[in-house]
Amino acid sequence: MKLLDLKDRLKLYVILDRRLGRGVPLCDQARLAIQGGATAIQLRDKRMQGRDFYRAALAIKEICKEKGVLFIVNDRLDVALTAGADGVHLGQEDLPLEAAEKIAPEGFIIGISVRTPDQAIEAERKGADYLGVGDVFGTSSKPDAKTIGIEGLKEVCVNTKLPCVAIGGIGVHNVKQALQAGAVGVAVISAVISQKDIAGAARTLRSLVS
Amino acid sequence: MKLLDLKDRLKLYVILDRRLGRGVPLCDQARLAIQGGATAIQLRDKRMQGRDFYRAALAIKEICKEKGVLFIVNDRLDVALTAGADGVHLGQEDLPLEAAEKIAPEGFIIGISVRTPDQAIEAERKGADYLGVGDVFGTSSKPDAKTIGIEGLKEVCVNTKLPCVAIGGIGVHNVKQALQAGAVGVAVISAVISQKDIAGAARTLRSLVS
Ligand code: NI
Repeated sequence: MKLLDLKDRLKLYVILDRRLGRGVPLCDQARLAIQGGATAIQLRDKRMQGRDFYRAALAIKEICKEKGVLFIVNDRLDVALTAGADGVHLGQEDLPLEAAEKIAPEGFIIGISVRTPDQAIEAERKGADYLGVGDVFGTSSKPDAKTIGIEGLKEVCVNTKLPCVAIGGIGVHNVKQALQAGAVGVAVISAVISQKDIAGAARTLRSLVS
Repeated sequence: MKLLDLKDRLKLYVILDRRLGRGVPLCDQARLAIQGGATAIQLRDKRMQGRDFYRAALAIKEICKEKGVLFIVNDRLDVALTAGADGVHLGQEDLPLEAAEKIAPEGFIIGISVRTPDQAIEAERKGADYLGVGDVFGTSSKPDAKTIGIEGLKEVCVNTKLPCVAIGGIGVHNVKQALQAGAVGVAVISAVISQKDIAGAARTLRSLVS
Protein backbone atom coordinates (compact mmCIF):
# COMPACT_ATOMS: atom_id res chain seq x y z
CA MET A 1 0.00 0.00 0.00
CA LYS A 2 1.33 3.43 -0.91
CA LEU A 3 2.09 5.86 1.90
CA LEU A 4 -0.43 8.43 0.71
CA ASP A 5 -3.11 5.83 0.54
CA LEU A 6 -2.29 4.53 4.03
CA LYS A 7 -2.34 8.07 5.45
CA ASP A 8 -5.86 8.58 4.15
CA ARG A 9 -6.98 5.30 5.63
CA LEU A 10 -5.66 6.20 9.08
CA LYS A 11 -7.85 9.27 9.54
CA LEU A 12 -10.47 7.79 11.81
CA TYR A 13 -9.15 4.59 13.33
CA VAL A 14 -11.76 2.91 15.51
CA ILE A 15 -10.73 0.21 17.96
CA LEU A 16 -13.44 -2.31 18.79
CA ASP A 17 -13.87 -3.48 22.36
CA ARG A 18 -16.16 -6.12 23.84
CA ARG A 19 -16.23 -4.63 27.34
CA LEU A 20 -16.50 -0.96 26.40
CA GLY A 21 -19.10 -1.59 23.70
CA ARG A 22 -22.09 -1.58 26.06
CA GLY A 23 -23.17 -5.03 24.91
CA VAL A 24 -23.04 -4.20 21.20
CA PRO A 25 -21.48 -7.20 19.39
CA LEU A 26 -18.09 -6.58 17.79
CA CYS A 27 -19.47 -6.96 14.26
CA ASP A 28 -22.12 -4.35 14.92
CA GLN A 29 -19.56 -2.02 16.45
CA ALA A 30 -17.58 -2.36 13.20
CA ARG A 31 -20.61 -1.89 10.92
CA LEU A 32 -21.84 1.21 12.76
CA ALA A 33 -18.39 2.80 13.02
CA ILE A 34 -17.86 2.27 9.28
CA GLN A 35 -21.33 3.63 8.55
CA GLY A 36 -20.27 6.78 10.39
CA GLY A 37 -17.07 7.07 8.40
CA ALA A 38 -14.36 5.06 10.17
CA THR A 39 -11.45 4.60 7.76
CA ALA A 40 -9.74 1.87 9.79
CA ILE A 41 -10.96 -0.75 12.24
CA GLN A 42 -8.81 -2.53 14.80
CA LEU A 43 -9.84 -5.70 16.57
CA ARG A 44 -8.28 -5.95 20.01
CA ASP A 45 -8.99 -8.45 22.74
CA LYS A 46 -6.18 -9.84 24.84
CA ARG A 47 -8.51 -12.16 26.74
CA MET A 48 -10.29 -13.91 23.91
CA GLN A 49 -9.13 -17.44 23.12
CA GLY A 50 -7.34 -17.90 19.80
CA ARG A 51 -10.26 -19.64 18.10
CA ASP A 52 -12.83 -17.02 19.08
CA PHE A 53 -10.45 -14.21 18.20
CA TYR A 54 -9.79 -15.76 14.79
CA ARG A 55 -13.52 -16.14 14.10
CA ALA A 56 -14.21 -12.55 15.16
CA ALA A 57 -11.37 -11.40 12.91
CA LEU A 58 -12.73 -13.35 9.94
CA ALA A 59 -16.17 -11.82 10.36
CA ILE A 60 -14.92 -8.26 10.81
CA LYS A 61 -12.54 -8.61 7.90
CA GLU A 62 -15.50 -9.34 5.61
CA ILE A 63 -17.30 -6.23 6.85
CA CYS A 64 -14.22 -4.04 6.33
CA LYS A 65 -13.38 -5.52 2.95
CA GLU A 66 -16.84 -4.86 1.61
CA LYS A 67 -16.52 -1.19 2.54
CA GLY A 68 -12.85 -0.75 1.63
CA VAL A 69 -11.93 -0.03 5.24
CA LEU A 70 -8.51 -0.92 6.59
CA PHE A 71 -8.64 -3.86 8.99
CA ILE A 72 -5.94 -4.28 11.61
CA VAL A 73 -5.65 -7.02 14.25
CA ASN A 74 -4.02 -6.18 17.56
CA ASP A 75 -1.15 -8.28 18.92
CA ARG A 76 -1.85 -11.67 17.31
CA LEU A 77 0.09 -11.68 14.07
CA ASP A 78 -0.98 -15.26 13.42
CA VAL A 79 -4.65 -14.29 13.63
CA ALA A 80 -4.05 -11.22 11.46
CA LEU A 81 -2.34 -13.30 8.76
CA THR A 82 -4.70 -16.27 8.78
CA ALA A 83 -7.85 -14.14 8.90
CA GLY A 84 -6.63 -12.04 5.98
CA ALA A 85 -6.39 -8.73 7.83
CA ASP A 86 -4.58 -5.84 6.18
CA GLY A 87 -2.15 -5.60 9.04
CA VAL A 88 -1.25 -6.07 12.67
CA HIS A 89 -0.78 -3.58 15.47
CA LEU A 90 1.99 -4.37 17.96
CA GLY A 91 2.56 -2.80 21.36
CA GLN A 92 5.95 -2.52 23.02
CA GLU A 93 5.24 -5.74 24.96
CA ASP A 94 4.00 -7.69 21.95
CA LEU A 95 5.97 -9.66 19.41
CA PRO A 96 8.94 -7.48 18.36
CA LEU A 97 8.73 -5.80 14.96
CA GLU A 98 11.84 -7.60 13.70
CA ALA A 99 10.16 -10.92 14.48
CA ALA A 100 6.93 -9.93 12.77
CA GLU A 101 8.85 -8.82 9.68
CA LYS A 102 10.14 -12.38 9.28
CA ILE A 103 6.74 -13.76 8.36
CA ALA A 104 4.74 -10.72 7.22
CA PRO A 105 4.17 -10.82 3.48
CA GLU A 106 4.93 -7.90 1.17
CA GLY A 107 2.32 -5.17 1.60
CA PHE A 108 1.15 -6.35 5.01
CA ILE A 109 0.89 -3.35 7.33
CA ILE A 110 2.62 -3.26 10.71
CA GLY A 111 1.68 -0.55 13.18
CA ILE A 112 3.64 0.04 16.37
CA SER A 113 2.60 1.71 19.61
CA VAL A 114 5.10 4.34 20.68
CA ARG A 115 5.35 6.87 23.49
CA THR A 116 8.68 8.52 22.70
CA PRO A 117 10.73 9.79 19.73
CA ASP A 118 13.28 7.03 20.41
CA GLN A 119 10.65 4.34 20.07
CA ALA A 120 9.38 6.03 16.90
CA ILE A 121 12.85 6.19 15.36
CA GLU A 122 13.47 2.55 16.19
CA ALA A 123 10.14 1.47 14.74
CA GLU A 124 10.76 3.45 11.55
CA ARG A 125 14.24 2.00 11.18
CA LYS A 126 12.91 -1.54 11.60
CA GLY A 127 10.25 -1.10 8.95
CA ALA A 128 7.00 -0.11 10.68
CA ASP A 129 4.29 1.28 8.41
CA TYR A 130 2.57 3.58 10.86
CA LEU A 131 2.72 4.55 14.52
CA GLY A 132 0.05 4.68 17.20
CA VAL A 133 1.24 7.51 19.43
CA GLY A 134 0.05 7.95 22.99
CA ASP A 135 -1.46 7.85 25.47
CA VAL A 136 -1.94 11.51 24.49
CA PHE A 137 -4.71 12.77 26.74
CA GLY A 138 -5.32 9.94 29.18
CA THR A 139 -7.94 7.29 28.69
CA SER A 140 -10.14 5.34 31.02
CA SER A 141 -9.62 2.18 28.95
CA LYS A 142 -5.98 1.98 30.01
CA PRO A 143 -6.01 3.28 33.58
CA ASP A 144 -2.29 2.69 34.22
CA ALA A 145 -0.87 4.41 31.17
CA LYS A 146 0.87 7.71 31.65
CA THR A 147 -0.09 10.46 29.25
CA ILE A 148 2.42 12.13 26.94
CA GLY A 149 0.28 15.18 26.23
CA ILE A 150 0.07 17.17 23.03
CA GLU A 151 3.75 18.11 23.38
CA GLY A 152 4.76 14.47 23.56
CA LEU A 153 2.70 13.75 20.45
CA LYS A 154 4.33 16.64 18.59
CA GLU A 155 7.80 15.45 19.58
CA VAL A 156 7.14 12.03 18.12
CA CYS A 157 5.58 13.38 14.93
CA VAL A 158 8.50 15.67 14.10
CA ASN A 159 10.96 12.82 14.58
CA THR A 160 9.48 10.37 12.11
CA LYS A 161 8.35 10.21 8.50
CA LEU A 162 5.83 7.53 9.37
CA PRO A 163 2.15 8.47 9.57
CA CYS A 164 1.20 8.96 13.22
CA VAL A 165 -2.19 8.19 14.70
CA ALA A 166 -2.89 9.91 18.00
CA ILE A 167 -4.43 7.68 20.66
CA GLY A 168 -5.66 8.11 24.20
CA GLY A 169 -8.50 10.28 25.37
CA ILE A 170 -9.24 11.61 21.89
CA GLY A 171 -12.68 13.19 21.45
CA VAL A 172 -14.45 15.96 19.55
CA HIS A 173 -12.88 18.59 21.79
CA ASN A 174 -9.24 17.72 21.04
CA VAL A 175 -9.12 16.17 17.54
CA LYS A 176 -7.95 19.42 15.97
CA GLN A 177 -5.15 19.74 18.53
CA ALA A 178 -3.95 16.22 17.66
CA LEU A 179 -3.92 16.99 13.93
CA GLN A 180 -2.13 20.30 14.49
CA ALA A 181 0.51 18.41 16.44
CA GLY A 182 1.25 16.39 13.32
CA ALA A 183 -0.97 13.31 13.55
CA VAL A 184 -2.55 12.15 10.28
CA GLY A 185 -5.50 10.70 12.17
CA VAL A 186 -6.94 9.73 15.50
CA ALA A 187 -7.57 6.38 17.10
CA VAL A 188 -10.59 6.12 19.36
CA ILE A 189 -12.32 3.49 21.40
CA SER A 190 -14.89 4.78 23.85
CA ALA A 191 -15.48 8.06 21.98
CA VAL A 192 -17.14 5.91 19.33
CA ILE A 193 -18.01 2.43 20.50
CA SER A 194 -19.19 3.37 24.02
CA GLN A 195 -21.64 5.90 22.60
CA LYS A 196 -25.36 5.21 22.23
CA ASP A 197 -25.18 6.38 18.63
CA ILE A 198 -21.97 4.74 17.39
CA ALA A 199 -22.46 5.79 13.78
CA GLY A 200 -23.30 9.35 14.80
CA ALA A 201 -20.26 9.62 17.05
CA ALA A 202 -18.03 8.33 14.25
CA ARG A 203 -19.62 10.77 11.80
CA THR A 204 -18.90 13.77 14.01
CA LEU A 205 -15.27 12.75 14.52
CA ARG A 206 -14.82 11.99 10.85
CA SER A 207 -16.01 15.46 9.91
CA LEU A 208 -13.27 16.88 12.12
CA VAL A 209 -10.43 14.88 10.53
CA SER A 210 -11.44 15.21 6.87
CA MET B 1 9.63 -34.53 8.64
CA LYS B 2 9.04 -38.21 7.96
CA LEU B 3 6.48 -40.01 10.11
CA LEU B 4 8.96 -42.51 11.49
CA ASP B 5 11.34 -39.75 12.49
CA LEU B 6 8.58 -37.73 14.15
CA LYS B 7 7.36 -40.81 16.07
CA ASP B 8 10.80 -41.28 17.57
CA ARG B 9 10.97 -37.65 18.57
CA LEU B 10 7.65 -37.81 20.40
CA LYS B 11 8.71 -40.47 22.91
CA LEU B 12 9.31 -38.23 25.89
CA TYR B 13 7.62 -34.91 25.33
CA VAL B 14 8.30 -32.50 28.20
CA ILE B 15 6.17 -29.40 28.61
CA LEU B 16 7.89 -26.51 30.39
CA ASP B 17 5.98 -24.48 32.93
CA ARG B 18 6.96 -21.37 34.86
CA ARG B 19 4.59 -21.95 37.76
CA LEU B 20 5.07 -25.68 38.16
CA GLY B 21 8.83 -25.51 37.78
CA ARG B 22 9.53 -24.65 41.42
CA GLY B 23 11.43 -21.51 40.48
CA VAL B 24 13.68 -23.22 37.95
CA PRO B 25 13.98 -20.92 34.90
CA LEU B 26 12.43 -22.22 31.68
CA CYS B 27 15.81 -22.57 29.97
CA ASP B 28 17.13 -24.69 32.82
CA GLN B 29 13.98 -26.80 32.78
CA ALA B 30 14.67 -27.44 29.09
CA ARG B 31 18.38 -28.17 29.56
CA LEU B 32 17.82 -30.59 32.42
CA ALA B 33 14.92 -32.38 30.73
CA ILE B 34 17.02 -32.84 27.60
CA GLN B 35 19.97 -33.99 29.68
CA GLY B 36 17.69 -36.69 31.06
CA GLY B 37 16.56 -37.76 27.60
CA ALA B 38 13.55 -35.64 26.61
CA THR B 39 12.99 -36.05 22.86
CA ALA B 40 10.64 -33.07 22.53
CA ILE B 41 10.17 -29.84 24.45
CA GLN B 42 7.05 -27.72 24.44
CA LEU B 43 6.96 -24.12 25.61
CA ARG B 44 3.56 -23.20 26.99
CA ASP B 45 2.53 -20.05 28.80
CA LYS B 46 -0.82 -18.44 28.11
CA ARG B 47 -0.10 -15.53 30.42
CA MET B 48 3.25 -14.36 29.15
CA GLN B 49 3.22 -11.25 26.97
CA GLY B 50 4.10 -11.78 23.32
CA ARG B 51 7.56 -10.25 23.58
CA ASP B 52 8.61 -12.30 26.61
CA PHE B 53 7.12 -15.44 25.10
CA TYR B 54 9.02 -14.85 21.86
CA ARG B 55 12.29 -14.30 23.72
CA ALA B 56 11.80 -17.45 25.80
CA ALA B 57 11.02 -19.37 22.61
CA LEU B 58 14.19 -18.08 20.91
CA ALA B 59 16.34 -19.14 23.84
CA ILE B 60 14.78 -22.59 24.20
CA LYS B 61 14.93 -23.16 20.47
CA GLU B 62 18.71 -22.74 20.62
CA ILE B 63 18.97 -25.28 23.43
CA CYS B 64 16.80 -27.80 21.57
CA LYS B 65 18.51 -27.26 18.23
CA GLU B 66 21.93 -27.90 19.72
CA LYS B 67 20.74 -31.25 21.06
CA GLY B 68 18.55 -32.24 18.11
CA VAL B 69 15.45 -32.15 20.25
CA LEU B 70 12.07 -31.28 18.75
CA PHE B 71 10.86 -27.85 19.84
CA ILE B 72 7.15 -27.05 19.85
CA VAL B 73 5.47 -23.80 20.89
CA ASN B 74 2.00 -23.95 22.38
CA ASP B 75 -0.85 -21.87 20.96
CA ARG B 76 1.04 -18.91 19.44
CA LEU B 77 1.72 -19.88 15.85
CA ASP B 78 3.27 -16.47 15.22
CA VAL B 79 5.79 -17.03 18.01
CA ALA B 80 6.49 -20.57 16.80
CA LEU B 81 7.17 -19.37 13.25
CA THR B 82 9.19 -16.29 14.10
CA ALA B 83 11.29 -18.02 16.77
CA GLY B 84 12.09 -20.86 14.39
CA ALA B 85 10.39 -23.64 16.37
CA ASP B 86 9.85 -27.00 14.69
CA GLY B 87 6.12 -26.75 15.21
CA VAL B 88 3.11 -25.51 17.09
CA HIS B 89 0.69 -27.28 19.39
CA LEU B 90 -2.94 -26.17 19.16
CA GLY B 91 -5.75 -26.93 21.60
CA GLN B 92 -9.39 -27.11 20.63
CA GLU B 93 -9.85 -23.45 21.70
CA ASP B 94 -6.75 -22.19 19.89
CA LEU B 95 -6.37 -21.07 16.30
CA PRO B 96 -8.10 -23.71 14.14
CA LEU B 97 -5.89 -26.16 12.26
CA GLU B 98 -7.21 -25.00 8.88
CA ALA B 99 -6.17 -21.44 9.72
CA ALA B 100 -2.71 -22.52 10.85
CA GLU B 101 -2.22 -24.53 7.66
CA LYS B 102 -2.60 -21.30 5.66
CA ILE B 103 0.68 -19.86 6.90
CA ALA B 104 2.63 -22.89 8.15
CA PRO B 105 5.53 -23.65 5.82
CA GLU B 106 6.18 -27.11 4.39
CA GLY B 107 7.63 -29.38 7.07
CA PHE B 108 6.37 -27.31 9.98
CA ILE B 109 4.76 -29.63 12.52
CA ILE B 110 1.25 -29.06 13.83
CA GLY B 111 0.08 -30.99 16.87
CA ILE B 112 -3.54 -30.97 18.01
CA SER B 113 -5.04 -31.71 21.43
CA VAL B 114 -7.86 -34.22 21.18
CA ARG B 115 -10.12 -35.99 23.64
CA THR B 116 -12.24 -38.09 21.30
CA PRO B 117 -11.96 -40.22 18.14
CA ASP B 118 -14.06 -37.63 16.27
CA GLN B 119 -11.61 -34.88 17.12
CA ALA B 120 -8.74 -37.16 16.09
CA ILE B 121 -10.34 -38.02 12.75
CA GLU B 122 -11.02 -34.35 12.06
CA ALA B 123 -7.46 -33.34 12.94
CA GLU B 124 -6.02 -36.09 10.73
CA ARG B 125 -8.27 -35.10 7.82
CA LYS B 126 -7.21 -31.46 8.14
CA GLY B 127 -3.51 -32.28 8.11
CA ALA B 128 -2.31 -32.51 11.70
CA ASP B 129 1.09 -34.15 12.19
CA TYR B 130 0.55 -35.63 15.65
CA LEU B 131 -2.04 -35.69 18.40
CA GLY B 132 -1.82 -34.91 22.10
CA VAL B 133 -4.43 -37.23 23.60
CA GLY B 134 -5.93 -36.68 27.02
CA ASP B 135 -6.40 -35.82 29.75
CA VAL B 136 -5.73 -39.55 30.27
CA PHE B 137 -5.26 -39.97 34.01
CA GLY B 138 -6.12 -36.58 35.46
CA THR B 139 -3.59 -33.92 36.21
CA SER B 140 -3.30 -31.26 38.82
CA SER B 141 -2.04 -28.76 36.25
CA LYS B 142 -5.46 -28.64 34.57
CA PRO B 143 -7.89 -29.05 37.44
CA ASP B 144 -11.04 -28.66 35.30
CA ALA B 145 -10.27 -31.19 32.62
CA LYS B 146 -12.20 -34.43 32.61
CA THR B 147 -10.15 -37.58 32.22
CA ILE B 148 -10.65 -39.98 29.31
CA GLY B 149 -8.87 -42.89 30.96
CA ILE B 150 -6.80 -45.57 29.28
CA GLU B 151 -9.87 -46.74 27.36
CA GLY B 152 -10.40 -43.27 25.94
CA LEU B 153 -6.76 -43.14 24.88
CA LYS B 154 -7.03 -46.54 23.19
CA GLU B 155 -10.17 -45.47 21.33
CA VAL B 156 -8.41 -42.45 19.88
CA CYS B 157 -5.25 -44.38 18.96
CA VAL B 158 -7.13 -47.08 17.01
CA ASN B 159 -9.02 -44.44 15.05
CA THR B 160 -6.07 -42.51 13.66
CA LYS B 161 -2.85 -43.14 11.77
CA LEU B 162 -1.27 -40.08 13.40
CA PRO B 163 1.26 -40.60 16.17
CA CYS B 164 -0.46 -40.11 19.52
CA VAL B 165 1.18 -38.70 22.62
CA ALA B 166 -0.62 -39.50 25.86
CA ILE B 167 -1.00 -36.56 28.23
CA GLY B 168 -2.44 -35.99 31.68
CA GLY B 169 -1.28 -37.54 34.91
CA ILE B 170 1.43 -39.61 33.23
CA GLY B 171 4.16 -40.92 35.55
CA VAL B 172 6.47 -43.87 36.01
CA HIS B 173 3.58 -46.04 37.23
CA ASN B 174 1.44 -45.71 34.09
CA VAL B 175 3.78 -45.07 31.14
CA LYS B 176 3.63 -48.72 30.04
CA GLN B 177 -0.17 -48.65 30.10
CA ALA B 178 -0.17 -45.59 27.86
CA LEU B 179 2.17 -47.22 25.35
CA GLN B 180 0.17 -50.45 25.37
CA ALA B 181 -2.93 -48.38 24.59
CA GLY B 182 -1.24 -47.27 21.38
CA ALA B 183 0.56 -44.04 22.26
CA VAL B 184 3.98 -43.57 20.67
CA GLY B 185 5.09 -41.45 23.59
CA VAL B 186 4.08 -39.55 26.68
CA ALA B 187 3.79 -35.85 27.43
CA VAL B 188 4.61 -34.79 30.95
CA ILE B 189 4.79 -31.59 32.91
CA SER B 190 5.01 -31.99 36.67
CA ALA B 191 6.37 -35.57 36.52
CA VAL B 192 9.55 -33.97 35.19
CA ILE B 193 9.75 -30.26 35.76
CA SER B 194 8.25 -30.20 39.27
CA GLN B 195 10.78 -32.77 40.49
CA LYS B 196 13.85 -31.85 42.49
CA ASP B 197 16.00 -33.86 40.07
CA ILE B 198 14.55 -32.87 36.70
CA ALA B 199 17.19 -34.71 34.67
CA GLY B 200 16.82 -37.83 36.82
CA ALA B 201 13.04 -37.81 36.51
CA ALA B 202 13.32 -37.47 32.74
CA ARG B 203 15.90 -40.27 32.62
CA THR B 204 13.64 -42.70 34.45
CA LEU B 205 10.69 -41.93 32.19
CA ARG B 206 12.82 -42.12 29.09
CA SER B 207 14.02 -45.58 30.03
CA LEU B 208 10.38 -46.69 30.15
CA VAL B 209 9.48 -45.38 26.67
CA SER B 210 12.58 -46.51 24.78
NI1 NI C 1 4.10 -32.41 8.36
